[in-house]
Amino acid sequence: MSDATNMLVDGEWRTGVRRDTGDSGEFERTETSFRNWIDGSVPEPGAEPVDNPEFPAEQDRYHVYICRACPWAHRVAMTRALKGLDGISLSLTRPERYDEGWEFSDSEPDPLYGADYLREIYTKADDDYTGRVTVPVLWDEEAETIVNNESEEIMRMLDTAFEGNGVDLWPEGSRREVDDLIDDVYPRINNGVYRAGFASTQAAYDEAVDELFDALDEYDDLLADRRYLAGDRLTEADVAMFATLVRFDHVYHTHFRCNRRGIHEYDNLWAYTKDLYQTPGIADTVNVDHITRHYYKSHESLNPKRLVPTGPDIDFAEAHDRDERRAAPEQLAPDATAD
Amino acid sequence: MSDATNMLVDGEWRTGVRRDTGDSGEFERTETSFRNWIDGSVPEPGAEPVDNPEFPAEQDRYHVYICRACPWAHRVAMTRALKGLDGISLSLTRPERYDEGWEFSDSEPDPLYGADYLREIYTKADDDYTGRVTVPVLWDEEAETIVNNESEEIMRMLDTAFEGNGVDLWPEGSRREVDDLIDDVYPRINNGVYRAGFASTQAAYDEAVDELFDALDEYDDLLADRRYLAGDRLTEADVAMFATLVRFDHVYHTHFRCNRRGIHEYDNLWAYTKDLYQTPGIADTVNVDHITRHYYKSHESLNPKRLVPTGPDIDFAEAHDRDERRAAPEQLAPDATAD
Repeated sequence: MSDATNMLVDGEWRTGVRRDTGDSGEFERTETSFRNWIDGSVPEPGAEPVDNPEFPAEQDRYHVYICRACPWAHRVAMTRALKGLDGISLSLTRPERYDEGWEFSDSEPDPLYGADYLREIYTKADDDYTGRVTVPVLWDEEAETIVNNESEEIMRMLDTAFEGNGVDLWPEGSRREVDDLIDDVYPRINNGVYRAGFASTQAAYDEAVDELFDALDEYDDLLADRRYLAGDRLTEADVAMFATLVRFDHVYHTHFRCNRRGIHEYDNLWAYTKDLYQTPGIADTVNVDHITRHYYKSHESLNPKRLVPTGPDIDFAEAHDRDERRAAPEQLAPDATAD
Repeated sequence: MSDATNMLVDGEWRTGVRRDTGDSGEFERTETSFRNWIDGSVPEPGAEPVDNPEFPAEQDRYHVYICRACPWAHRVAMTRALKGLDGISLSLTRPERYDEGWEFSDSEPDPLYGADYLREIYTKADDDYTGRVTVPVLWDEEAETIVNNESEEIMRMLDTAFEGNGVDLWPEGSRREVDDLIDDVYPRINNGVYRAGFASTQAAYDEAVDELFDALDEYDDLLADRRYLAGDRLTEADVAMFATLVRFDHVYHTHFRCNRRGIHEYDNLWAYTKDLYQTPGIADTVNVDHITRHYYKSHESLNPKRLVPTGPDIDFAEAHDRDERRAAPEQLAPDATAD
């Protein structure tokens, strides 16, 4: 059984390229390729704002391509929604990803070029592009190129280079803490589920699952004492965490065999997930149908029949007690409905 | 992807025979082949005991071949344990089933003939046997043939033709009710999980899962008012139900994609499962390691990598409140440890 992937090689589409797994059966994620920063972004705590007149932070100039299924793309959609960034347009690929990679659907065509496949956007930016074709993509409609396709960096750019409704997900005074949280959650949880799901040996799987649930247990404890990961304000760290938690019980638990425990079986992680889901703007970024269809139909090595399981009987909209904890009112953006 | 099975055809082993699925993608189970009854058995309510001097109910004459993973074989192991039938010997196949079918392991070889594969037992009974090679098998050591390989019938024979420690799992006055329960639980739950797992179309899967969880909900309600399915006595109906419930959260939930809800998330079904598990003799018949290894390693169409998931963090030995309900003491067989 192959764990093959599809990618552009010198601008040509190749299917069945060997997936990036290490000798010991561990899943290793490849780096993304476009890494420009929008003018005025602050990439790191203490850094000066980026001086990059090539990509000014203008309204109605940028577009993000996402897939509702993808947890990395979800960070971008959530940041855009929380900050009410209607000046950045957004469109969707269809959730299923087969041999031709991410593709557009008839019901939601590519609004910019009428492309059939997302790879056309990559080769439009670079004729000879080599690499995987991933979402999210931050596209500059004026320069007609990809600014960046790394989710963490796009989230940070949207948060720091654009004002939007004034919501700030990376508040001064918490920036180092937020980045430490993002850096901790990424390998252990966000990518931890993939390390379990795409492990090709029992040892690699066992190790990945142990580390994943150790991290979940730890964060469940942390969230007993605070409403959000960095305290009483919703930050980028919560955005990053939520994208994995909201997918966990429907896909990672069964499809990636992370079946030790569901998020809905953790007291604090479950209430926290519902709390974030119910934050204005977020529910519209969550599409469980797209999430399940993507995962179960896209990975033959995990689900050859491509049937979509019914999923757990849980409700992200049900009551939680998190709002009894103190929250800074400015973090709740009642008009954050762009999406 | 094929849903192939392996079987004997005119005594010859054939691999990759097309599995028995209907046109609409529904899983259909084939019938078993050896259907003799031991002398003195009572097959049905109101029936006369079977008169069959060919297979007398003698001690130290019969042997059962089972696999600890198999829920059908589990009924036989449980009945034997509850009744203390040490006079019927028992041996195990290894849990994994690959192209060569059920096989014996070096650590637990076939005690009767030193066979490598269970199919040799079938061809010993019938040179020209055609059909699947399944567990359980009730073997007559004197006649050197298979008496029966249908789990429900073997359970009934062990229960009615042998005295053992006096435990009676099919008590007079409840026999029709017990059989109605067995007949209801079989298609909806015991085989219901297989109908979900082996469905080859989304429609067949969706229907199977809906029916399965409707049945589980119904039985969860029933068990709110009574300790056992037929009332206050443990019967064959409980044996049949338990074999599926004890496997559910580790394998059917993830492997067969029955992921709407775990048994440990049902109040009554979960307490009932623990209660049965803790009934003397039963725990020794449950081997979660064999159960998980069998399912996850045997079905390429569901788990091509054959990695074994960690499984849920549940404990069949933890406390339950079922024993506060009235139970007939004679149903609890303290010396029922044969196994």
